[in-house]
Amino acid sequence: MAEPLTVGVDFGTLSGRAVVVRVRDGAELCSAVFEYPHGVLDETLPATGRALPPDWALQVPADYVGVLRNAVPAALRDAGADPADVVGIATDFTACTMVPTTADGTPLCELPEFEAEPHAYVKLWKHHSAQPQAVRINDLARARGEKWLPRYGGLISSEWEFAKGLELFEEAPAVYAAMRHWVEAADWIVWQLTGTYVRNACTAGYKGILQDGQYPSRDFLRELSPGFESFVADKLEHPLGQLGSRAGGLTAEAAGWTGLPEGIAVAVGNVDAHVTAPAANAVEPGQMVAIMGTSTCHVMNGAELREVPGMCGVVDGGIVTGLWGYEAGQSGVGDIFGWFADHFARDGHEQLTRLAARQEIGEHGLVALDWHSGNRSVLVDHELSGVIVGQTLATRPEDVYRALLEATAFGTRKIVETFGEAGVPVTELIIAGGLVKNALLMQIYADVTNLPLSVIGSEQGPALGSAIHAAVAAGAHPDVRAAAAAMGSVRRAVFQPVPAHVAAYDELYAEYTTLHDYFGRGGNDVMHRLAARRREVAKGRS
Amino acid sequence: MAEPLTVGVDFGTLSGRAVVVRVRDGAELCSAVFEYPHGVLDETLPATGRALPPDWALQVPADYVGVLRNAVPAALRDAGADPADVVGIATDFTACTMVPTTADGTPLCELPEFEAEPHAYVKLWKHHSAQPQAVRINDLARARGEKWLPRYGGLISSEWEFAKGLELFEEAPAVYAAMRHWVEAADWIVWQLTGTYVRNACTAGYKGILQDGQYPSRDFLRELSPGFESFVADKLEHPLGQLGSRAGGLTAEAAGWTGLPEGIAVAVGNVDAHVTAPAANAVEPGQMVAIMGTSTCHVMNGAELREVPGMCGVVDGGIVTGLWGYEAGQSGVGDIFGWFADHFARDGHEQLTRLAARQEIGEHGLVALDWHSGNRSVLVDHELSGVIVGQTLATRPEDVYRALLEATAFGTRKIVETFGEAGVPVTELIIAGGLVKNALLMQIYADVTNLPLSVIGSEQGPALGSAIHAAVAAGAHPDVRAAAAAMGSVRRAVFQPVPAHVAAYDELYAEYTTLHDYFGRGGNDVMHRLAARRREVAKGRS
Repeated sequence: MAEPLTVGVDFGTLSGRAVVVRVRDGAELCSAVFEYPHGVLDETLPATGRALPPDWALQVPADYVGVLRNAVPAALRDAGADPADVVGIATDFTACTMVPTTADGTPLCELPEFEAEPHAYVKLWKHHSAQPQAVRINDLARARGEKWLPRYGGLISSEWEFAKGLELFEEAPAVYAAMRHWVEAADWIVWQLTGTYVRNACTAGYKGILQDGQYPSRDFLRELSPGFESFVADKLEHPLGQLGSRAGGLTAEAAGWTGLPEGIAVAVGNVDAHVTAPAANAVEPGQMVAIMGTSTCHVMNGAELREVPGMCGVVDGGIVTGLWGYEAGQSGVGDIFGWFADHFARDGHEQLTRLAARQEIGEHGLVALDWHSGNRSVLVDHELSGVIVGQTLATRPEDVYRALLEATAFGTRKIVETFGEAGVPVTELIIAGGLVKNALLMQIYADVTNLPLSVIGSEQGPALGSAIHAAVAAGAHPDVRAAAAAMGSVRRAVFQPVPAHVAAYDELYAEYTTLHDYFGRGGNDVMHRLAARRREVAKGRS
Repeated sequence: MAEPLTVGVDFGTLSGRAVVVRVRDGAELCSAVFEYPHGVLDETLPATGRALPPDWALQVPADYVGVLRNAVPAALRDAGADPADVVGIATDFTACTMVPTTADGTPLCELPEFEAEPHAYVKLWKHHSAQPQAVRINDLARARGEKWLPRYGGLISSEWEFAKGLELFEEAPAVYAAMRHWVEAADWIVWQLTGTYVRNACTAGYKGILQDGQYPSRDFLRELSPGFESFVADKLEHPLGQLGSRAGGLTAEAAGWTGLPEGIAVAVGNVDAHVTAPAANAVEPGQMVAIMGTSTCHVMNGAELREVPGMCGVVDGGIVTGLWGYEAGQSGVGDIFGWFADHFARDGHEQLTRLAARQEIGEHGLVALDWHSGNRSVLVDHELSGVIVGQTLATRPEDVYRALLEATAFGTRKIVETFGEAGVPVTELIIAGGLVKNALLMQIYADVTNLPLSVIGSEQGPALGSAIHAAVAAGAHPDVRAAAAAMGSVRRAVFQPVPAHVAAYDELYAEYTTLHDYFGRGGNDVMHRLAARRREVAKGRS
């Protein structure tokens, strides 16, 4: 008799990936990818060719359904799996990515009257034009001493539900009026699978400012913008589902799209970073998962609620039900290495890494700050920028490259230490994401943090994590922790800190910290002034 | 009847250049170059193939005579000049470049017993292995409160006569014992032309620590190294000649080499940077000449003696007899631009300049410190290194390139301001050297310093400056000032500061100053620590 299987579907920025997984041990039988036909809309709107303002990033919801219709059947077929063996399906999504819908979940952009209206489309996580709204939210929350603000390291992002919602309210009143639900794409896709809208506890907490059962108050919202006070009640509030719970059964229509049996369990929606923790079997307090790609997202469970300065958020049940889920982030990591290799070096990453790997620690004589994309954790300041100190006429591109690798490792250590100082100690670092393949980078992280580095076993961590949640939703494992133990995959302590390296990096990290505090904590606000001048010049030109 | 002519000969690092000049108006009739056959010896000794230690840089004195034998006749021939019209010859040299000789001026390396002895060769200005000796000289001078130390901005260089002399004394006692004279190459070449050793007042002051008629005392030298107390009396002290004076008449032998008439005037030796001031007709107090190439040398006359922090030196009659000659320097300028273009950009200088020129001030959002080769003036610290602040993922090579151009301009402004604050005001900046061709760079310098920028008219400023000295030595002009007025060449105020640019750069210069003082004046000694670590690693490797 065949073994039970689940399907996990990971919705990324440009494509969605489905993986077919064996419930017993997490073996990945096959996977398939479907690229969104419309990709990211950041220049024009397809219906009209109308130009979009800078910082906009939209998507087309039908593209997501395309993943269900194409990637899921393809993965099943390539795995040689009998769809009848599949007991559940689960999804994870980018966040915060928001869909404005009618009462029945129809995206407003699919209504003929709104197809030419940019605000009616999906606002992708990296849609950044709600920055002015975010500034006002933060200023007011600080002024009023809102209790929820410290839960987000003191800063609500322009990417999140309230900033994007306020932008919609103020800039497109007709769309706002026609909208019944302001839905995370993570939940919208589950709605398509089950016919039921269930709001997941993860995004509601991290992106929707739901803390201790409360959203920001009507008073706060009214003060923010008169008329906005009913935003929560009218557009946002909705029954929650816990991660790993069953959101509903697969509808006949969705069964038709996917080739899966009608009625099988569909799990509550989830977020790509957070779902990676069970995929790496890293759901115990102290196990910090770093998903390292263009940027790095850190997720970790804690037994208790602590306010960690500069974290992205802490949410009850945000990663696993029953624990506090902490999130932190570095806004630039792989994209800094890519930027440098693309523009300031003649060699590619491989050769730069080979040359950098030959060096002893400190041989290049450099120390850098990794703020080329700003600093998320722990300074929460997107106006910060990169620094490099120590260049001589003998400095070569591989020297700078190595200094940049090290700078991001110092940034991770700063986060790890800040968590520890706030009473949330980190005992193990588990690395997922594309950068795990760079052994030099991994050894530097182990040496800089003085932590053993474990590495996720799967190359498609989020999709595996979703398959784990599907198994729990289907009742095949009692909970996410048990399912993670059975199905998650990690190679423990692959990179061990080398004591001599640790000592050498302690000294360089002290230099990093001095510069970090000087440029990031008010010693010299030159970066803010340079950024302001840059913006002013750009405005004068436009 | 033909007009009187002079010949100026400029001895550079790799070649010597002779120019034939009309005494009446400084018209340059023709010039010729002779490359030193041995170039710079920095790897092996030609006689033996013996390897030289790092930081060594030697030359072969016969190469200099080759310039007299080849470049001078070639220039005369190409100018179609009748040698009988030439009334004088003068020379300028790199400094401090030292020749150990016998009593009759024979270089010790030309004696068979010393041809395999590196210490018997010419020690070129950039021979840097006497750094430990320089450190001891400075430490002891500071401890003893030697009055001459502030005349050199508080630092005696490893390049100068005493550090190189102490190195010779301690590391090659046999060579030191055989040496009768420790001769500046600037004076040795005049000795070859005249048969007479005359020590020029310029190098004696700037490189030989001759101040108020006194060299460092026997006491000081004994404390530095027992046995070294007689260095001045035995090896260094010698009658001085003032700049523009006649050192002697051309010998028959030198007349044979050069094709010039025996007995014509030969001027006292001089230094390439200093001799450029009269060539640019910039010999009045307040006229600062910046000779901009791989590094920049600043020379300026002052009516009074002032102690300028961080200057290279102030010497009575160091540029023109009767005035105090001030010298300052930026250790890295063109070599920083070259380093960046060679290693960190795909475009060359021209394209980088074209792209950088399109930008408004501050558009790149960067500020840099120009210390990739250390900082000569005004911090006098060769352990400092480069910094760049403000990089984002949008930063491109032309942005960094422009920031580096600007950084060197800020460095010049720092020198100009320091002179002004010390009571030696700078009223005009006159640019000579290869970088005058970069119009963007010139405009940036005008805007940053808020000074009109004049440009030397000659492309061979030092050689023209020597020809001017030759005319004075021959009595064709009453003094160097008068000769400079007649023969020097400058285009006044070619680049005018633009008020809007001046205001914008004032703000960026304030940022530069804050970083300058933070990294250079004890706020954060990270550069010293990084340099120490780099050296330590290099030592561990060797």
